[in-house]
Amino acid sequence: MPDPVIPPARWSRRQEAGAGSPHISRREFVRRLGLGAAAIAIPGCSEVQSPLGPGTSPPEELVLPAGKDPEAFIRHSPLEFETRREAFGTSGIVPYERLFVRSNLPTPDASVVEDRDGWQLAVDGVRNPRTLTLRELKTLGVETVAAVLQCSGNGRIFFPHGAGGSQWGVGAAGCVVWSGVPVRSVAEALGGVDPGARFTTGTGGEAIPAGLDRDDAVVERSIPLEKGMTDALLAWEMNGEPLPLVHGGPLRLVVPGYFGINQVKYLARLAFTRRESAAAIMRTGYRLRAVGEEGAPGQPTMWEMSVKSWINHPSGADATVQRAGPVVVHGVAFGGARAVRRVEVSVNRGRSWDEARLVGPDLGPYAWRPFVAAMTLPAGRHLLVSRATDVAGNTQPRDRVENERGYGNTSWRDHAVMLTLS
Amino acid sequence: MPDPVIPPARWSRRQEAGAGSPHISRREFVRRLGLGAAAIAIPGCSEVQSPLGPGTSPPEELVLPAGKDPEAFIRHSPLEFETRREAFGTSGIVPYERLFVRSNLPTPDASVVEDRDGWQLAVDGVRNPRTLTLRELKTLGVETVAAVLQCSGNGRIFFPHGAGGSQWGVGAAGCVVWSGVPVRSVAEALGGVDPGARFTTGTGGEAIPAGLDRDDAVVERSIPLEKGMTDALLAWEMNGEPLPLVHGGPLRLVVPGYFGINQVKYLARLAFTRRESAAAIMRTGYRLRAVGEEGAPGQPTMWEMSVKSWINHPSGADATVQRAGPVVVHGVAFGGARAVRRVEVSVNRGRSWDEARLVGPDLGPYAWRPFVAAMTLPAGRHLLVSRATDVAGNTQPRDRVENERGYGNTSWRDHAVMLTLS
Repeated sequence: MPDPVIPPARWSRRQEAGAGSPHISRREFVRRLGLGAAAIAIPGCSEVQSPLGPGTSPPEELVLPAGKDPEAFIRHSPLEFETRREAFGTSGIVPYERLFVRSNLPTPDASVVEDRDGWQLAVDGVRNPRTLTLRELKTLGVETVAAVLQCSGNGRIFFPHGAGGSQWGVGAAGCVVWSGVPVRSVAEALGGVDPGARFTTGTGGEAIPAGLDRDDAVVERSIPLEKGMTDALLAWEMNGEPLPLVHGGPLRLVVPGYFGINQVKYLARLAFTRRESAAAIMRTGYRLRAVGEEGAPGQPTMWEMSVKSWINHPSGADATVQRAGPVVVHGVAFGGARAVRRVEVSVNRGRSWDEARLVGPDLGPYAWRPFVAAMTLPAGRHLLVSRATDVAGNTQPRDRVENERGYGNTSWRDHAVMLTLS
Repeated sequence: MPDPVIPPARWSRRQEAGAGSPHISRREFVRRLGLGAAAIAIPGCSEVQSPLGPGTSPPEELVLPAGKDPEAFIRHSPLEFETRREAFGTSGIVPYERLFVRSNLPTPDASVVEDRDGWQLAVDGVRNPRTLTLRELKTLGVETVAAVLQCSGNGRIFFPHGAGGSQWGVGAAGCVVWSGVPVRSVAEALGGVDPGARFTTGTGGEAIPAGLDRDDAVVERSIPLEKGMTDALLAWEMNGEPLPLVHGGPLRLVVPGYFGINQVKYLARLAFTRRESAAAIMRTGYRLRAVGEEGAPGQPTMWEMSVKSWINHPSGADATVQRAGPVVVHGVAFGGARAVRRVEVSVNRGRSWDEARLVGPDLGPYAWRPFVAAMTLPAGRHLLVSRATDVAGNTQPRDRVENERGYGNTSWRDHAVMLTLS
């Protein structure tokens, strides 16, 4: 079995618009976002292979959002910051300071969080459609859920065909606690969902950049109606504080167990609809298809996540564990749309596996769980891997499913850690 | 039943040293800490009754530790910052940005967290006593626990006799996730605990201020041996990030279910001892006794916490809920040394109670749980209270237990929220 190969970061030859639009090139899309040279240039430079290290002064465009730990991130673009593998701990939650950032459109002006309770949400597809303020939403109920937030393209860097988009390794993911009102409570308060509605559709409130067609740029995603009505939340709080602006504050649609793209930030409209959104980000973007194919409505969309795990320590980048001897290997595991049941680790490329121990509180089926495995490693070169199994018996596969955009990578082999001990 | 009375903040006439020493006055103790006028003056000024509001520039001495949310705190002293009632959410955990601060000695220089893995811990009272680095400790095991961190004096402000010390309301408490190595794993790795040992004793690594006797100033606490050997941790991580300096990083003794004073910061020595520490903070400080009595070894020490809850929203300070109508009341509840089972709320001064609903993941027996209760409140003046019951059937009492230092206040009446709705 060959070592995992990390392909050079580059744009795919099959460029596509950020939101999956066939109408304009990704380069043109990014230009119109106003992000300029940085966003274009980064994937082609040495950023991914030699991330900006601590103490390096990043280009102005890649300054982290306020309060983010400068040592915790790989800086992909002005809207994309990945948590370094070694920055994940064993607490189960990822604090704001270390949580990855991925935005599809420029972050709204901070003025939107100056009067959080005044934020307005239009609700359609109910008996009594109306606009509610966040102040009103807060009177309709409160629920709290811990859930993994993961970008569809997390693990894209391991696809050998050079899938377009940010070259995420393991860190376009985090586990956080969300709190807000259940979508079903809002629907009930407005007289119930329209008969015939089949989808819960959320629309982001970002400004559409000048020169872009609304449907090409708007962040609008549909999920099955029943998912919305069971455990989706309109969240105004994350990890015990008002939802930070860069993560979608004042209000975000949270769909536990689903990929990040469905967790619509700056939620401006919630609708119960007969059809999926016609926005490019739903119609053609975030569609799973063979390498070389264009995105199209008939293909599977990035909804439910699958079982996945990876080792965070030793990371291979941590100078403190370069010596042979005892080590407590740790990582994170989650089932995606269902709970994780067990995790195994291997130090011999999957020829044999040892059971790892899940540690800390169980934060529920949509959270990830830290796992640990105490072992003694001799001097030499080691390839450490982990694989998780969910409660339905699905085990993380050895190989990725090749696909055009590099989505949904759960390959245990791809996520291996290579370690040289002396 | 009278409304709760908040006494004016003031030093008790029965001054005592910060660490409970009978040898010097508290004023002299504080002077020798080098904290100067601020620490002395604050309790006598308007700070407690009219906390510095957002936008007010605090005296330099009361500048918050880096990264703390300036709007989330009541500033008591350079070493004491209380989380505002309205700054608690419903996520179950309190993020670093909003977690209270209480230190018994000045915070060590930040250089101690520059090489975290190089931090040294002396371990005594084992078959093979030795000094271990944090790097070595990390090879001995990892466990994770969510636990309430609460100052013994939380709720002191409600004591009518003017108990000495910071006038904490509800916010000298928070629930966080700790991760580190179990104390028992360290003891086992060093050959096991000495026969005859009855206590687990932790010593803080802060410098002893010049002019102070070591035993008067050192933060050294003993807990029962068996508590140390069951679920105490040596924690290097909090809420998913390396333990912040102000909260005891690089290494802190965590004793789930026990008051904050036992969670020794900057842990420099761990010892399994036949006797309790002779330090003033153990011998005479943090002893529960009648008003007017001096601290003495025979009195109960502040170990296990008891069942407690309070309402955080509406807080009475939040302009957004001053209108009559529907409101989702929320707060937090914990059992202390055991899990919480239920929470009730009352809007009629305890004449009748309604069951509240616990929300979010259960983070384990030592964590707190957010509770919510949806209700409709008419215009007028309302006194909202909550009371919790733990799994052993202990219910939070109506009245506080009067005691000299204002410790361990769990009175539901004291923690009431007064609300005027129009």
